[in-house]
Amino acid sequence: MDYATQMDAARNGVITNEMKTVAVYEGISSGTLREMVSNGIVVIPCNKNHKALKPHGIGSSLKTKINVNLGTSRDCPDTAGEMKKAKAAVAMGAESIMDLSSYGDTRTFRTHLVKSCSAIIGTVPVYDAIVCYNKPLSEITSRQWLDILKMHADDGVDFMTIHCGINKDTAAKFKNSSRLTNIVSRGGSLILSWMEMTGCENPFYENYDEVLDICRAHDVTISLGDACRPGCIEDAGDVSQIEELVVLGELTKRAWEKDVQVIVEGPGHMSIDQIEANMKIQKTLCKSAPFYVLGPIVTDIAPGYDHITVAIGGAVAAMHGAAFLCYVTPAEHLRLPTLDDMKEGIVAAKIASHAADIAKGIKGAERWDHDMSDARRNLDWDKMFSLSLDGEKARRYRSELTPENQDSCTMCGKMCAVRNMNSIMKNKTVNIL
Amino acid sequence: MDYATQMDAARNGVITNEMKTVAVYEGISSGTLREMVSNGIVVIPCNKNHKALKPHGIGSSLKTKINVNLGTSRDCPDTAGEMKKAKAAVAMGAESIMDLSSYGDTRTFRTHLVKSCSAIIGTVPVYDAIVCYNKPLSEITSRQWLDILKMHADDGVDFMTIHCGINKDTAAKFKNSSRLTNIVSRGGSLILSWMEMTGCENPFYENYDEVLDICRAHDVTISLGDACRPGCIEDAGDVSQIEELVVLGELTKRAWEKDVQVIVEGPGHMSIDQIEANMKIQKTLCKSAPFYVLGPIVTDIAPGYDHITVAIGGAVAAMHGAAFLCYVTPAEHLRLPTLDDMKEGIVAAKIASHAADIAKGIKGAERWDHDMSDARRNLDWDKMFSLSLDGEKARRYRSELTPENQDSCTMCGKMCAVRNMNSIMKNKTVNIL
Repeated sequence: MDYATQMDAARNGVITNEMKTVAVYEGISSGTLREMVSNGIVVIPCNKNHKALKPHGIGSSLKTKINVNLGTSRDCPDTAGEMKKAKAAVAMGAESIMDLSSYGDTRTFRTHLVKSCSAIIGTVPVYDAIVCYNKPLSEITSRQWLDILKMHADDGVDFMTIHCGINKDTAAKFKNSSRLTNIVSRGGSLILSWMEMTGCENPFYENYDEVLDICRAHDVTISLGDACRPGCIEDAGDVSQIEELVVLGELTKRAWEKDVQVIVEGPGHMSIDQIEANMKIQKTLCKSAPFYVLGPIVTDIAPGYDHITVAIGGAVAAMHGAAFLCYVTPAEHLRLPTLDDMKEGIVAAKIASHAADIAKGIKGAERWDHDMSDARRNLDWDKMFSLSLDGEKARRYRSELTPENQDSCTMCGKMCAVRNMNSIMKNKTVNIL
Repeated sequence: MDYATQMDAARNGVITNEMKTVAVYEGISSGTLREMVSNGIVVIPCNKNHKALKPHGIGSSLKTKINVNLGTSRDCPDTAGEMKKAKAAVAMGAESIMDLSSYGDTRTFRTHLVKSCSAIIGTVPVYDAIVCYNKPLSEITSRQWLDILKMHADDGVDFMTIHCGINKDTAAKFKNSSRLTNIVSRGGSLILSWMEMTGCENPFYENYDEVLDICRAHDVTISLGDACRPGCIEDAGDVSQIEELVVLGELTKRAWEKDVQVIVEGPGHMSIDQIEANMKIQKTLCKSAPFYVLGPIVTDIAPGYDHITVAIGGAVAAMHGAAFLCYVTPAEHLRLPTLDDMKEGIVAAKIASHAADIAKGIKGAERWDHDMSDARRNLDWDKMFSLSLDGEKARRYRSELTPENQDSCTMCGKMCAVRNMNSIMKNKTVNIL
């Protein structure tokens, strides 16, 4: 069966192999999934050149997925280290990896990653343009920006962040507003700076039809970048953010007209009370295209702990409709993350996504918690460790402080409520001495 | 001016010194605060014998407060270490400390803590009864349970958790239900076990008037313990939990009739989607008495990371009305926390409480985030560190990976959006090479 994209196939009644795999994983029928893909509420990012891919669906009716950022940079140019991170991320359950490399031989790293990695691979081609052309920003041409997109699509990338919502119109609105932290999107700030220096329209917005043709050719999912995502809670939900979202909604519609799969990027820094409304507005403006949140970070005051601020925001966002969470590590706002930081970030993101899946009633999500709680009631420590999100840490913690009574732990000792309830209900007596 | 309790004073139009201190800290008028104390929606736990106390108000219209648990135990009997924890907790901004000591000379530790510590001090006298009487549980008499309460009140404890909601009636309902994890409250399981073995009614429920007299005499705030708080998300919001809450509502009313201040303890393990409803039901059943949540832990699967599962639940709970968050450390469900665990737990609880304060519009809460974001826009790293919840960690993280460009960080280097936006908006140009 011949088709251009998963969306094209779905719309023509074709159930692809990728749909079959995803349907089994999600525990839904492939027919139901096909319909979701056909109307854009689920995407299956899968570049035809990414042969190693284990496909996953992204959509708010499916299990919440998480993305891990990595890549080389001027300060950390070690490709072997980044490849090690990629392997560890997949082993820890990350469904997606964004290669944000901004230094060195980025193409070799990217193609190696695509060749060897089963996770969904995303990129931000704008960063790579800076590396590849290695010339003043204002001298990069409109054509060159597009050429980089084409190269990434050829290389087998499954989704690309493209900042095409920050056009001359939204840029003017941004400049008229008085944001506390301006624009904090790396790609967005580069494109806006280029527009300011050249006087030209955003090359991806101006040539959006060509962007779509490139994506359609390889079935690259577009991740519509949010240049104006709030960089502090004070800027959240302001004119710049919402006006850009309106544009992203229009661009979503145009992509769907060419059967190109789309996800939409979202906040950012945002107080908890605003998150639900933000998810709803994205849904109405962008016709329920899957929402990929780069946060929300719910308070600005905790650098060193932004895996926690974002676990709060991500869980609430996913419960209210976000489909895809970008992890944040304790190193956010401070430095590039190490392997340990990455691990902390992944665990926090997995907690947020799973907690949201339970909250929104995703099929089967509660089973894990049931089994863990059953093991807990039985004081079956080995089973608890095997069911733990990070069994190694749980085991290590307990072993560092061994209890006098092996059935309980040092927290309560013989006053352990679990132990005593088991005893009183079975034997009608309890011994606490 | 002579008065029995803060509530008694408030009801007689008296603005106490404690009310004045709290009003200044909260940025509200002392008259407004007096009214809140008079109708029970705010408590100021302050035992007349706790001379070192820096009073704090607890209520959902005030800044969210946090509690830190510590104390000696059979496996960790070191009092000096626990005293060190207490000092560190206060320095890190914990407003309250619960001394849960269950081993050794508990009274000497408790009186020393009361004498030296400015935080609100809470205890669970049931644990101490086990230590003091050192005999089989079933041999402790009703009178002896009450004597321990009296001793703690004399010793200057500001609030006491008393598990008087698990009476014969609610116990029967619990036994008729089929909970996955039974009862996980340590104090609740001890009292229920005692009731089962002796056939007697809950001594604190049966003699509640005497309990109130003891509390009134020293202005001890009652923390109505929730024996039936869910120990896994599957048990959340079940008959046992709600029936006990009904009883706690009745006991709240009876306490208020004697001018005794009350807070009500809440969940526990609970999925995010249930939290709002639970906060609302507590509010209606307990007439808006401040809600003290021991969680909510939003998924059971992450031992080693329950400071994160609870940061999610605590933030959502506080946004919807919880006034007081009990911290949870990474050691929860595994072992007694170390000093480092305590630190992690406090930071997570402070994040949750502050994020909730912003979300519910507590006066002045956003100012901290504003100042941090202003420093961030200016790339003023020293100011960022001084404003960070944990400035030491933030500074250390950045210093571990020093960027080539001192103005940005190794995450983005010369592609730093903040740096480039400042440049393009001021100088109309950007240099990324």
